[in-house]
Amino acid sequence: MAKIGIAGGSGYGGMELVQILLGHPRAELIWISSEQHAGRKVGQVYPHLQGLMELNFSPLEELSSVDLDVLFLALPHGQAMKIVPGLPEDLVVIDLSGDFRIADPEVFEKFYHFPLESPQQQQKFVYGLTELNREKIRGARRIANPGCFASATLLALHPLFEEGWIEGPVLVDTKTGSSGAGRFPGATTHHPWRANSLFPYKPFSHQHLPEITQALGNPDHPVIFQTYSAPFVRGIFASHYMQLNQEATAEDLARLYQDRYGSDFFIRWVPDCPNVNSVRHSNFVDIGAAAENGFLIVWSVLDNLQKGAAGQAVQNMNLMCDFPEEAGLESAPVLP
Amino acid sequence: MAKIGIAGGSGYGGMELVQILLGHPRAELIWISSEQHAGRKVGQVYPHLQGLMELNFSPLEELSSVDLDVLFLALPHGQAMKIVPGLPEDLVVIDLSGDFRIADPEVFEKFYHFPLESPQQQQKFVYGLTELNREKIRGARRIANPGCFASATLLALHPLFEEGWIEGPVLVDTKTGSSGAGRFPGATTHHPWRANSLFPYKPFSHQHLPEITQALGNPDHPVIFQTYSAPFVRGIFASHYMQLNQEATAEDLARLYQDRYGSDFFIRWVPDCPNVNSVRHSNFVDIGAAAENGFLIVWSVLDNLQKGAAGQAVQNMNLMCDFPEEAGLESAPVLP
Amino acid sequence: MAKIGIAGGSGYGGMELVQILLGHPRAELIWISSEQHAGRKVGQVYPHLQGLMELNFSPLEELSSVDLDVLFLALPHGQAMKIVPGLPEDLVVIDLSGDFRIADPEVFEKFYHFPLESPQQQQKFVYGLTELNREKIRGARRIANPGCFASATLLALHPLFEEGWIEGPVLVDTKTGSSGAGRFPGATTHHPWRANSLFPYKPFSHQHLPEITQALGNPDHPVIFQTYSAPFVRGIFASHYMQLNQEATAEDLARLYQDRYGSDFFIRWVPDCPNVNSVRHSNFVDIGAAAENGFLIVWSVLDNLQKGAAGQAVQNMNLMCDFPEEAGLESAPVLP
Amino acid sequence: MAKIGIAGGSGYGGMELVQILLGHPRAELIWISSEQHAGRKVGQVYPHLQGLMELNFSPLEELSSVDLDVLFLALPHGQAMKIVPGLPEDLVVIDLSGDFRIADPEVFEKFYHFPLESPQQQQKFVYGLTELNREKIRGARRIANPGCFASATLLALHPLFEEGWIEGPVLVDTKTGSSGAGRFPGATTHHPWRANSLFPYKPFSHQHLPEITQALGNPDHPVIFQTYSAPFVRGIFASHYMQLNQEATAEDLARLYQDRYGSDFFIRWVPDCPNVNSVRHSNFVDIGAAAENGFLIVWSVLDNLQKGAAGQAVQNMNLMCDFPEEAGLESAPVLP
Repeated sequence: MAKIGIAGGSGYGGMELVQILLGHPRAELIWISSEQHAGRKVGQVYPHLQGLMELNFSPLEELSSVDLDVLFLALPHGQAMKIVPGLPEDLVVIDLSGDFRIADPEVFEKFYHFPLESPQQQQKFVYGLTELNREKIRGARRIANPGCFASATLLALHPLFEEGWIEGPVLVDTKTGSSGAGRFPGATTHHPWRANSLFPYKPFSHQHLPEITQALGNPDHPVIFQTYSAPFVRGIFASHYMQLNQEATAEDLARLYQDRYGSDFFIRWVPDCPNVNSVRHSNFVDIGAAAENGFLIVWSVLDNLQKGAAGQAVQNMNLMCDFPEEAGLESAPVLP
Repeated sequence: MAKIGIAGGSGYGGMELVQILLGHPRAELIWISSEQHAGRKVGQVYPHLQGLMELNFSPLEELSSVDLDVLFLALPHGQAMKIVPGLPEDLVVIDLSGDFRIADPEVFEKFYHFPLESPQQQQKFVYGLTELNREKIRGARRIANPGCFASATLLALHPLFEEGWIEGPVLVDTKTGSSGAGRFPGATTHHPWRANSLFPYKPFSHQHLPEITQALGNPDHPVIFQTYSAPFVRGIFASHYMQLNQEATAEDLARLYQDRYGSDFFIRWVPDCPNVNSVRHSNFVDIGAAAENGFLIVWSVLDNLQKGAAGQAVQNMNLMCDFPEEAGLESAPVLP
Repeated sequence: MAKIGIAGGSGYGGMELVQILLGHPRAELIWISSEQHAGRKVGQVYPHLQGLMELNFSPLEELSSVDLDVLFLALPHGQAMKIVPGLPEDLVVIDLSGDFRIADPEVFEKFYHFPLESPQQQQKFVYGLTELNREKIRGARRIANPGCFASATLLALHPLFEEGWIEGPVLVDTKTGSSGAGRFPGATTHHPWRANSLFPYKPFSHQHLPEITQALGNPDHPVIFQTYSAPFVRGIFASHYMQLNQEATAEDLARLYQDRYGSDFFIRWVPDCPNVNSVRHSNFVDIGAAAENGFLIVWSVLDNLQKGAAGQAVQNMNLMCDFPEEAGLESAPVLP
Repeated sequence: MAKIGIAGGSGYGGMELVQILLGHPRAELIWISSEQHAGRKVGQVYPHLQGLMELNFSPLEELSSVDLDVLFLALPHGQAMKIVPGLPEDLVVIDLSGDFRIADPEVFEKFYHFPLESPQQQQKFVYGLTELNREKIRGARRIANPGCFASATLLALHPLFEEGWIEGPVLVDTKTGSSGAGRFPGATTHHPWRANSLFPYKPFSHQHLPEITQALGNPDHPVIFQTYSAPFVRGIFASHYMQLNQEATAEDLARLYQDRYGSDFFIRWVPDCPNVNSVRHSNFVDIGAAAENGFLIVWSVLDNLQKGAAGQAVQNMNLMCDFPEEAGLESAPVLP
């Protein structure tokens, strides 16, 4: 059993890691930190885990004295970059924040509103979207786990960019559930406000945009990216609109995606319109499309805490530790 | 037009007062306070009111320099009791907090966890549940507006207590929407947590219980009172369980409530099970009941921000100002 | 008082008309039909209206024997076109269905999947989006009330088309609440399915698209139109994406919309991102925008049962009957 | 691997069985029926299962020709009683409907509104609430799987009845999510109606009541039982109110439940108020309590599709097949 630690285990990302790791056949969670809850039993702080684990939350500073095979960092943006330089080179480190996703320091600062600690650190990190970077991830010790919106969009767009089917800009209109805002209450997640609302936020300036453009890297196809908050709890629904540069039937589209992702267990091509319902509480990404008169819509959906965060992180761990890629992630989506 | 002021106008109670007063034929809102937003236009702070009112939020200390006919106090518990002693005797004052609802200082402190400023102040206040206290309210200048749970329960139980139909204790199991928690985000109203949950809180200790026992005042029928948080936004659904001391058919029950509330516009007897849906965004209270083998269930529902707070307050104002009791409150409930 | 009838009063559109008309100072609802509920009191079928109206539902065939000033048709698509030819020429008729919105019979049949009864009927109808057609509506006796999506999109795009600020196609990504599906339960509005879902439907083929293109009528700017179902109850949130053909600052955009709609009470320009919350249960439409690098996003929101259906219908009635345009529609939006 | 069949696999109970069995280490689903979908692949009918199973839905009449070790019946009430008499005696049969839960034919007919096919069949069935009947279940071939409400209430009340701590009647006020109504859309699960509502149904007459009284069997403690529909999707929250006949501190209550259920993996005593959130998508039941002045409230929560239906059914299968009791049911609850 691999010995696993989670730094920052009391947020939604950390909690989801716990939920997955409890059912993982090859990994054992032996250390988990939380400043707020240090010294308390995890199952006391989180009643849904009562009776399921004996671990206490530890303070973060104990990290240096624990013997781990894999460390997940599930800390707020800006904290991982302070910790990583002090970690052993051979420790598998998977960071769920945005700290190591962006190579260019200026771009980072523009979207995150604070500077990188050490720009050269960035080069040690592999961008951990498995289906795009599987071999690099396998050999890496440092993973920048992708953002939830970026994962949905990159998996939808990559085959089209790769094959050169489109022309001009791509417009992305993407909707998130409230769990994407994290565990701390705020004005936009206050139930009386959120329960029946829908609204855009961060026009032209969401921090997942530079991840997308960096990974796609094609100036011919600028990406316009707009995020919306919707009143469900889990899920990303991403809509991608663009012009085709060739005829493409439904069959052509199916073949493109099935060829590209045919051996990727977690990516499913769906013949009808995808739905957040069909991937909830699972690591699956459903992709579907419709085209008419040379105009193409591609939809992708995922669970923001699974494939958009903790599930993706475990998938990366599996690769790096030479476990079966699906280990711990086989559960079927749950409906309703 | 009566000149109206609201102290503490930026919470849900104050906002609902604004919404009602904007449509009131005899009242004009001329002053509204908010510490947080002082100096800003109401329609800027609350975009849903943009274009509908020119008023700015004022700081509370300007209160003494405004000439008002009616003052609504929609401040957090404990603040009204500091302001009221300095107000002109002939000003109509309607307090939406719990500060003046409880006569007994010890009981107050037990449930509110802080002492009364001036226990003798309490005597000047009339408990403002119109259908129980109409004549006293008409002649009063000081109103303690009832709690939302207390209103639902008192209107359901009063006819039974008055006529002496029951024996033994009454069990109240009562469910509230999230707007009851007010405008400030907190752990129990965080959307990812609240959206699919249901849970009890404050066992045996909710601060609306002493209002109920004070108003019913019958030691033969102790009230056990349990509140629950449910994942809707507006509404109180109150279930009352008790033993009858006599046979009572559905017709008997209908007659009891129709006789008692027949001339009360806002109280409706419903032949079937009541539903939160049927009173939403209105000042109505729907009451229904079922009995079998001498056991009685009475249900009452209301909108916690209307009949449970701001609507009730305006109903009281109408009485005190000699306006038609329904003025400004005639809108039909909205469904869906 | 104008004498008002509603044919098809038991659906959500009809019910919303009832709610509005109950508070209208110049109109009296004297007749309402429902096949399913004929002979029953409205307040019995709809407990939320108990005590508020004495009317019974009538069978539709009684229509010819009632003396009305205004008739609202709130029937399923395809039924109004059978009734209208038999109605008195001078009766004010406002149809809430899609039957008379589309001039071209082929286009109609393509999107509605059944043919027009009598294509020449269409010419008698004025498209009832007040802010675009006020003068024509004032003089008309026959109104085709617009679709909810079409209203949101036309109000957002019209100033841009009129002033010629944009180039190329417009992409519309638009999200609706569940009440848009009407009163009859179905698979996509089943609560366990809908409560946490988001999904597209009718790709490239929603029946509101031809209303939009007919009203905008500019082949240089094809409209790509995609609808989504979201898990709130009321509201349309429409996002419009397009290329500007000139520089446009936030101020320029504000001026464009304020100039165009400055005297339109129900259209509000909002400096920040609009939100479904801010127009709920009102006839307001909030419009906002953001632009960067020559790319423009315009957002519009409305309540689909108010400005998207019954509110718009009453606004049209007010014009045609020479009532104040806002009569019965002045209520502020309700929040939360 | 045990060979498993599901008759009636397209409802929520059947779908949840599929979800659980896909992760079960000792069981293989080899047959599943659906009249509506016969001949179609499960993963086509249910996109969330796409790629996860190769099985087609079969018509029910093929049942007799399949070789099974275990058959789950997840059919509407009244259908299992027609099928069971024809099944092999040694086949493990677990029925999720109410058909075999009630021994007394008159009581059955009173609550289900149709008669039993064959009252003597009932005796062959063991009531499958594991924690109350473990040894009988182990040796049985026929299981009547309990109702969701009944499970929550029986697990909460059994220790108190067994130890004789209470006096007089027990009042049960119990709230269900919308998935309890099953897969077919109806008026009370229509999203615009349900999303913000709460309402009682079936006063004094819910069909789970006779299961409860039959299992508790103590005329000194009549059970008054009232069900409510709440606007979440999954979960039962049951509140039980009663008089104690002795002093009982929080510690006494904890000890009572911990002693009774200490070796029952799925029953958890919680020191604070339980919450639907803490058991969702798991087979756990959380029980908590509060007492004051001799009055006791006990709360129990469970996921109606797991411990309230399919999870309980698999737990019973595990016992009967001599698998570890938790097999396939170990997943931690998922939050948020």
